[in-house]
Amino acid sequence: MLDEKILNILRHNKDSHVSGEELCKLADISRAAIWKHVEKLREEGYEIEATPHLGYKLIAIPDILIPSEIKWKLKAKIFGKEIISYKKVDSTNDAAYELAEKGAGEGAVILAEEQTKGRGRYGRRWISPPKSGIYMSCILRPHIAPNEIPRITLLAAVAVTKAIREITGLEALIKWPNDTMIEGRKLCGILTEMKAEQDSVDFVVVGIGVNVSTPAKNLPKGASSLKDELRRRGVKIAVSRTELAKRILEMFEEYYDILGKKGFEPIIDAWKDLTAMLGARVKVTLPNRNFEGQAHDINPDGALVVRLDSGVLEKVSSGDVVVIR
Amino acid sequence: MLDEKILNILRHNKDSHVSGEELCKLADISRAAIWKHVEKLREEGYEIEATPHLGYKLIAIPDILIPSEIKWKLKAKIFGKEIISYKKVDSTNDAAYELAEKGAGEGAVILAEEQTKGRGRYGRRWISPPKSGIYMSCILRPHIAPNEIPRITLLAAVAVTKAIREITGLEALIKWPNDTMIEGRKLCGILTEMKAEQDSVDFVVVGIGVNVSTPAKNLPKGASSLKDELRRRGVKIAVSRTELAKRILEMFEEYYDILGKKGFEPIIDAWKDLTAMLGARVKVTLPNRNFEGQAHDINPDGALVVRLDSGVLEKVSSGDVVVIR
Repeated sequence: MLDEKILNILRHNKDSHVSGEELCKLADISRAAIWKHVEKLREEGYEIEATPHLGYKLIAIPDILIPSEIKWKLKAKIFGKEIISYKKVDSTNDAAYELAEKGAGEGAVILAEEQTKGRGRYGRRWISPPKSGIYMSCILRPHIAPNEIPRITLLAAVAVTKAIREITGLEALIKWPNDTMIEGRKLCGILTEMKAEQDSVDFVVVGIGVNVSTPAKNLPKGASSLKDELRRRGVKIAVSRTELAKRILEMFEEYYDILGKKGFEPIIDAWKDLTAMLGARVKVTLPNRNFEGQAHDINPDGALVVRLDSGVLEKVSSGDVVVIR
Repeated sequence: MLDEKILNILRHNKDSHVSGEELCKLADISRAAIWKHVEKLREEGYEIEATPHLGYKLIAIPDILIPSEIKWKLKAKIFGKEIISYKKVDSTNDAAYELAEKGAGEGAVILAEEQTKGRGRYGRRWISPPKSGIYMSCILRPHIAPNEIPRITLLAAVAVTKAIREITGLEALIKWPNDTMIEGRKLCGILTEMKAEQDSVDFVVVGIGVNVSTPAKNLPKGASSLKDELRRRGVKIAVSRTELAKRILEMFEEYYDILGKKGFEPIIDAWKDLTAMLGARVKVTLPNRNFEGQAHDINPDGALVVRLDSGVLEKVSSGDVVVIR
């Protein structure tokens, strides 16, 4: 907490030095303690200049997913109010689930620089090398029934895809139910898990994995990173993971608020605005059968409606869907 | 395990004595060890007679919910294969949920003589004084989607109600979704909880609480016990909790098997055979509104269909339903 206090004083005085004396007064601690905390911040990656007679100045901020960085100027009020970050964790979803079972409130967020057992849908692996992606899980406590869970899943896809578009300028699109794609390559995956009674959800954990600068050689076939997609388009900006994570939380809160106030319809509308899938020919893989058809619509439950060649409309609420080119 | 071995030898020789020498040979242990295990069994409540020159004889078996009693001649193959029993536990559902998270297999059962924080639907309390009820939770790993969870809930109600009818002779009935009632008084409650991804269930915990001999003064309004209902009808049998718990597990396995092989329809049929609710006037209490109507049917999803006075059919998938007399 004191680290954060000192850091924020330096941030507020970004263009000038803050004398040791001033820092002591503002943070209400001793000179020796200041030095200790500055050292700790430096270890975390902050560049802090110390000039005799002038004092301290913040030179550079590291792009790391720690609470003080995420919380700084975060516009979300509930999402990210409580943040726990790990250098390395098995799975942020597992950590969040455990925390939720202990009673963690809505909007609590778990972040990690690296996951050793990152998971995707159906127990698949999610490649999570250090410092190259966003591995983030949010705890929600929505007043919904278990069969309304697609509301959260589709909402998460909208929030993440909008945030990626804003921060990177890439024209990312959603593939049903909740993959963020660009030209058929996957940039982000979402894993929704819940604890529920038969007719009411206790809590939901939404896990979000974004490939920010994950090297192509580490990624499975069909996946890509924001960095590679930008490079492919000749854009030379480096994507700040911190900024993107913040924007995702803000967007999530915005649409979660809409869901609570206006229901699922505006979420479906926003989802449809962000997909190129409707009208396309798709292949659906279910545990016990496969079929092809035209992706026709999203129904009010969040299921994908596929029109078979026979004209029959088939409702898809689970399984894998690929657009056939 | 050795206790159980010795116990089973004595059970197989119920009408005669087994000499110490024979017991040593059959259980493959020393004479001193036999004595130690017999003492342990006596502490658990087994009456074992020891007569010089004749040997040991099992006189009486306690009605306690321990693995060796439940497993003895249990006809279920999967349900109850693994049993953990507690003298006292917070909640058998919590214990089972934790066990399931650690990977416990389908059919694992948690039993307790007493629950200090027994739970019902919507976080309500389930009164669980020592040795007066069955407090039991089963772990299932069905291949279903979260919205198919009513399949398990309704199935559990069928299994429990059938078992209660068989063991006690009481004409118990089901109230939607899964209460076992007699003349409007509640005898048993079921709490289904699950961990799930958006479109597949990881595991389900079905908690079953039966008021066997729970004193009326401890029970909330509208609840009753098997003992009191039998007494009310002038029947003087004592209900064996062990026998009832076993029968519930056997019935559960029987109908779970049917669900797997033939789907939900035969379960709904069995459910309908055990209810007097369809056709009756009911009051439905939802979080945001209440209404009355006639309980009309159970739809293929397991929801209760209520016909309003306007003739409109309303689908009820959650909330409380009371039959109005």
